Amino acid sequence: MKAGIIGSTGYAGQQLVGLLINHPKVEISFLSSYTYEHQIFSDVYGIYDHIVKMQCISLSEALEKVKDIDVLFIALPHGQSLEIIEQVKNKSVKIIDFGADFRMKNHETIESWYGLVHQDLDLLHEAVYGLPELNKDKIMKASIIANPGCYPTTAILGLLPIIREEYVDHHSIIIDAKSGVTGAGRKATLSLSFAETNESIKAYSVGEHRHTPEIEEVLNAYSNKAFLVNFTPHLVPMQRGILSTIYVNLKELINEEQLMKVYKNFYKSHPFVRIIDQLPETKNVVRTNFCDISVRIDQRTNRLIIVSAIDNLLKGAAGTAVHNMNLLMGYEEDMGLNSVFYYL
Amino acid sequence: MKAGIIGSTGYAGQQLVGLLINHPKVEISFLSSYTYEHQIFSDVYGIYDHIVKMQCISLSEALEKVKDIDVLFIALPHGQSLEIIEQVKNKSVKIIDFGADFRMKNHETIESWYGLVHQDLDLLHEAVYGLPELNKDKIMKASIIANPGCYPTTAILGLLPIIREEYVDHHSIIIDAKSGVTGAGRKATLSLSFAETNESIKAYSVGEHRHTPEIEEVLNAYSNKAFLVNFTPHLVPMQRGILSTIYVNLKELINEEQLMKVYKNFYKSHPFVRIIDQLPETKNVVRTNFCDISVRIDQRTNRLIIVSAIDNLLKGAAGTAVHNMNLLMGYEEDMGLNSVFYYL
Amino acid sequence: MKAGIIGSTGYAGQQLVGLLINHPKVEISFLSSYTYEHQIFSDVYGIYDHIVKMQCISLSEALEKVKDIDVLFIALPHGQSLEIIEQVKNKSVKIIDFGADFRMKNHETIESWYGLVHQDLDLLHEAVYGLPELNKDKIMKASIIANPGCYPTTAILGLLPIIREEYVDHHSIIIDAKSGVTGAGRKATLSLSFAETNESIKAYSVGEHRHTPEIEEVLNAYSNKAFLVNFTPHLVPMQRGILSTIYVNLKELINEEQLMKVYKNFYKSHPFVRIIDQLPETKNVVRTNFCDISVRIDQRTNRLIIVSAIDNLLKGAAGTAVHNMNLLMGYEEDMGLNSVFYYL
Amino acid sequence: MKAGIIGSTGYAGQQLVGLLINHPKVEISFLSSYTYEHQIFSDVYGIYDHIVKMQCISLSEALEKVKDIDVLFIALPHGQSLEIIEQVKNKSVKIIDFGADFRMKNHETIESWYGLVHQDLDLLHEAVYGLPELNKDKIMKASIIANPGCYPTTAILGLLPIIREEYVDHHSIIIDAKSGVTGAGRKATLSLSFAETNESIKAYSVGEHRHTPEIEEVLNAYSNKAFLVNFTPHLVPMQRGILSTIYVNLKELINEEQLMKVYKNFYKSHPFVRIIDQLPETKNVVRTNFCDISVRIDQRTNRLIIVSAIDNLLKGAAGTAVHNMNLLMGYEEDMGLNSVFYYL
Repeated sequence: MKAGIIGSTGYAGQQLVGLLINHPKVEISFLSSYTYEHQIFSDVYGIYDHIVKMQCISLSEALEKVKDIDVLFIALPHGQSLEIIEQVKNKSVKIIDFGADFRMKNHETIESWYGLVHQDLDLLHEAVYGLPELNKDKIMKASIIANPGCYPTTAILGLLPIIREEYVDHHSIIIDAKSGVTGAGRKATLSLSFAETNESIKAYSVGEHRHTPEIEEVLNAYSNKAFLVNFTPHLVPMQRGILSTIYVNLKELINEEQLMKVYKNFYKSHPFVRIIDQLPETKNVVRTNFCDISVRIDQRTNRLIIVSAIDNLLKGAAGTAVHNMNLLMGYEEDMGLNSVFYYL
Repeated sequence: MKAGIIGSTGYAGQQLVGLLINHPKVEISFLSSYTYEHQIFSDVYGIYDHIVKMQCISLSEALEKVKDIDVLFIALPHGQSLEIIEQVKNKSVKIIDFGADFRMKNHETIESWYGLVHQDLDLLHEAVYGLPELNKDKIMKASIIANPGCYPTTAILGLLPIIREEYVDHHSIIIDAKSGVTGAGRKATLSLSFAETNESIKAYSVGEHRHTPEIEEVLNAYSNKAFLVNFTPHLVPMQRGILSTIYVNLKELINEEQLMKVYKNFYKSHPFVRIIDQLPETKNVVRTNFCDISVRIDQRTNRLIIVSAIDNLLKGAAGTAVHNMNLLMGYEEDMGLNSVFYYL
Repeated sequence: MKAGIIGSTGYAGQQLVGLLINHPKVEISFLSSYTYEHQIFSDVYGIYDHIVKMQCISLSEALEKVKDIDVLFIALPHGQSLEIIEQVKNKSVKIIDFGADFRMKNHETIESWYGLVHQDLDLLHEAVYGLPELNKDKIMKASIIANPGCYPTTAILGLLPIIREEYVDHHSIIIDAKSGVTGAGRKATLSLSFAETNESIKAYSVGEHRHTPEIEEVLNAYSNKAFLVNFTPHLVPMQRGILSTIYVNLKELINEEQLMKVYKNFYKSHPFVRIIDQLPETKNVVRTNFCDISVRIDQRTNRLIIVSAIDNLLKGAAGTAVHNMNLLMGYEEDMGLNSVFYYL
Repeated sequence: MKAGIIGSTGYAGQQLVGLLINHPKVEISFLSSYTYEHQIFSDVYGIYDHIVKMQCISLSEALEKVKDIDVLFIALPHGQSLEIIEQVKNKSVKIIDFGADFRMKNHETIESWYGLVHQDLDLLHEAVYGLPELNKDKIMKASIIANPGCYPTTAILGLLPIIREEYVDHHSIIIDAKSGVTGAGRKATLSLSFAETNESIKAYSVGEHRHTPEIEEVLNAYSNKAFLVNFTPHLVPMQRGILSTIYVNLKELINEEQLMKVYKNFYKSHPFVRIIDQLPETKNVVRTNFCDISVRIDQRTNRLIIVSAIDNLLKGAAGTAVHNMNLLMGYEEDMGLNSVFYYL
């Protein structure tokens, strides 16, 4: 099959390139880049030297080639895929979008949190939220897949197994998330410089982060309830990885062991979620497509604490995109995603 | 005045040495060390070469010298100061203890969380919890000061201004704390090695960390209520610093601006707490004795989020110890604590 | 083919596991570990959870299984493979040894630098120095392969193309090398703790590092000259990667462009050496099996500066081991070594 | 005395602020900043909140105030102080310049390496190279002090004690230097971002770095010889600190112990150079004004290896600036420079 990538020189985009060059079924037809238009891809990312010999093409050149490919990946910042998808929607190409533009169904939520106005609501509703553990069947038949946000992936996977349960106090959910710096994208920004970032941690966008309504909409749709969550992201001095610590009040006494069984059972057919006994550490998931989850009950407060960890560029972006592509094309779910493991 | 330090070669102990050699009123009478007994202090910490020329003495040698000093600092791991303090209690020396042994008044709590049995409950009750913002007057007259834990310092300072208020839901308090690795002490441990620690974050001791009852006892005593908190510590790949994100449900609508005023007013006479508009970052407090605090109200969930940050070795240990010494001796509160600022 | 690994839980050993589980021709027969004997491998390295389900066996159990495998990898600290190899030398198994025990031919050098006494000099001489770019033909027919040291790999690959040339001043070679901390192995050592290692750089073993005679012996044998080098290693706060900056006085004026051609030509049939125009950075080689090399001539001093970079655990250890296995078995050189690329 | 700072919001500038606010003799009259003109200084550097309450003024405002101060510090990038100094040269103010504009005496060298044209050669020759260990007497009487570069400080201090000796091969000097990222200044640059900088090391400006002629001119003037050095800087993932490893061929056999005595004797009256037995590590000098130096002789190659370490923002910039100010004003050399020590 043939794939094209728009936005190949961001961190998620280049990671997608890394996955696709090793995927046994994929041929990359083109890489496009706005910033590095007409430059050799491996001049931007020297690690690919001798391996990826393509030149980055422009967006307009990419759009002309869309008709010849099977899957188009769009790895652009939020707000930039809407227009592109509207342009190519009538072509037979399948679209996997890394941005937030099509993740939520409520266009008013999108408008109020992102300032993005959807004109074609049918198109919006056609898009499938591309979390394989939630929407596997829909993804297999989708034409537009909205790849989940990185933070929402940790939060939703952590909460899905219990969110429909009566013992969960729906007003109580707090998600305290910690991310490495690649989550902010590849930018020349003073606040992301090594000198300003290393050896420090901070919270940011408290009460205001745009992943909040994404988490809420997905959980509400799945549980048929209407609730609000607190989501607090933090910036941690590391390159990759997200760890989310999720707090849920329990209305009944629940046994930790039983709960672990619920979780293991829920994900038993999902190859990329590992329910583990030890508390997750990001070093065990970075450069893999796994989400590691463990749960603890604090019996003193009868509160459930769920800890989930992913690699923001893989399970939180390019890995799930390939997973979705595999589902779309009828390949094995983990094809191209179970390669060499790099501890450290 | 003359000071002695037992446990001078741990991270907190050596930081205390760093502060005291610059304190205008202090003469260090002795440094003791178990691990580096009879070695030159600056051979252990090369940064002090040419500056600190003392040799570390043994504990028994130190105990003999206690009679000749005014203040004894004990910077040992938990459980090791109880016996020492019982030995020197009848001497006229004032004691500032970095350990947890005398922090709580409820000896049963100490026993169940630390396995430490206090025989002399009068001695336990004589000790003052050495958080200057809470117990300034008592500290000035104390003979034994139990220096607060590093995590509790961030949590208690973050919560004190509102903990007596009716609008606070006392069953709702969650403290999600993130610490650099010096909080674990100076140890040859695989899990603290650079290779295992860098580029990764993890939660640990979920629901079980021994700073939990310390936070609860102090807040309960101050608010005259009985409640339980969730405290979840995380290990972050940085050397110094703690950031605590504290979640509190509000029973009434409160205005963020008014709340900031409450905080500013509460700490207006306390030189080492800064209530700031921006969200705290540990880089602005490390190598200072400040605790930076900011508050946010998430109006969607009517939840208060308090973020507080300190340097675990200063405001969380050696800095507060010197602050307490200043109070004990009647010096200016900030004497020896407002020296050069090192951003980065 | 069947492979066994002795010493599978060190950093190089576990990386070898990571490579072999994805190698299309290899079945791992056993993993042994001294430290984690009879423990589940993925309990030691959580990243392999759900992927590697084997238990670590003991050394004696491993030695019994050696007769049933094709290749035995020994990834133990220096001095521990000599005895093992003497025990299994008459079995048909091929051996790839990560240690230094068989790297040099001069048994006196081994004895004086490592304190290791070889009784069976025939065995020593049978061993092939496993640097594929130097000894490809010999490796293909070898029975014992001594995998090169990590530092020597950077130095030798950087110098090979010119070391036979008359314009090289053989008395002038200085190798200033910088390594991440995994080069020191997986140890509970205070000096390798995060707190002691992060945010600092140091030189160590100046004039005394045991990789010095390895570099010299290989270069002398290849150039038929007898010279001595200066080798100075440094410890850098990063997990993986070595960068060596090599200084060579030139006896004649040489053109930089011509020299680049010499290098490109020398390595044109070697898939894992990249001669690049930009100066190497370790981030472009870590988690790959590449060695990146670039050269500069300082015309003011007529000195050649060669910069070479590798991943110490791959091209400097497990990657070259697999490369050697491929050569031994007649597979494609890069089989199992060109998988997903992880920038960052 | 009254001091003014032009360029107070760069990394070196703000560090100077940190030193001066604790200096017992100094009153800061003004801080100027181009980037943060008319902003509160502590809004730029939150660590100074509650401590430094001044607003940054513009350059033109600063120039008007120059007449009322005793010492003007200029902490601007290279090439920006020349014009300013020409404007204020007739005022009675003493100038301490952090830039390279007045460091060298040979105006042609300045022009060819920096592209800077000096019209007023008298002014250039009036300036004193502000390395206190070299030019103490001249500094005390100077009106313009050119503060040394950070790399040159390590190289020159490492070489001064032996550079006049006959046993030194003057054609052999190689300086391999490793710096943390603050050496590059405070910039929004992709290549200095955390994601691009952490976990990687590189060499840069090989054979071309502009600190090369500064090192040469100072050493040549002092030794009355004419020689050229190789200087290779590297970027290391840490915030502060420079370690230089310097290689010198010896024409005679020299004893290491004797050489250490030569070094100790040379610096015996200089409070900020420590000749130490162990190899220097940057963690023992960062946030101090010390330069740590140790020497080794590799007897196999008869080569001297000198390792020197400093904090680039202190001994390499602001610390030496204050040292120079102390000399100018007749204060104790170490006034304001021997405050609290922060290991880590």
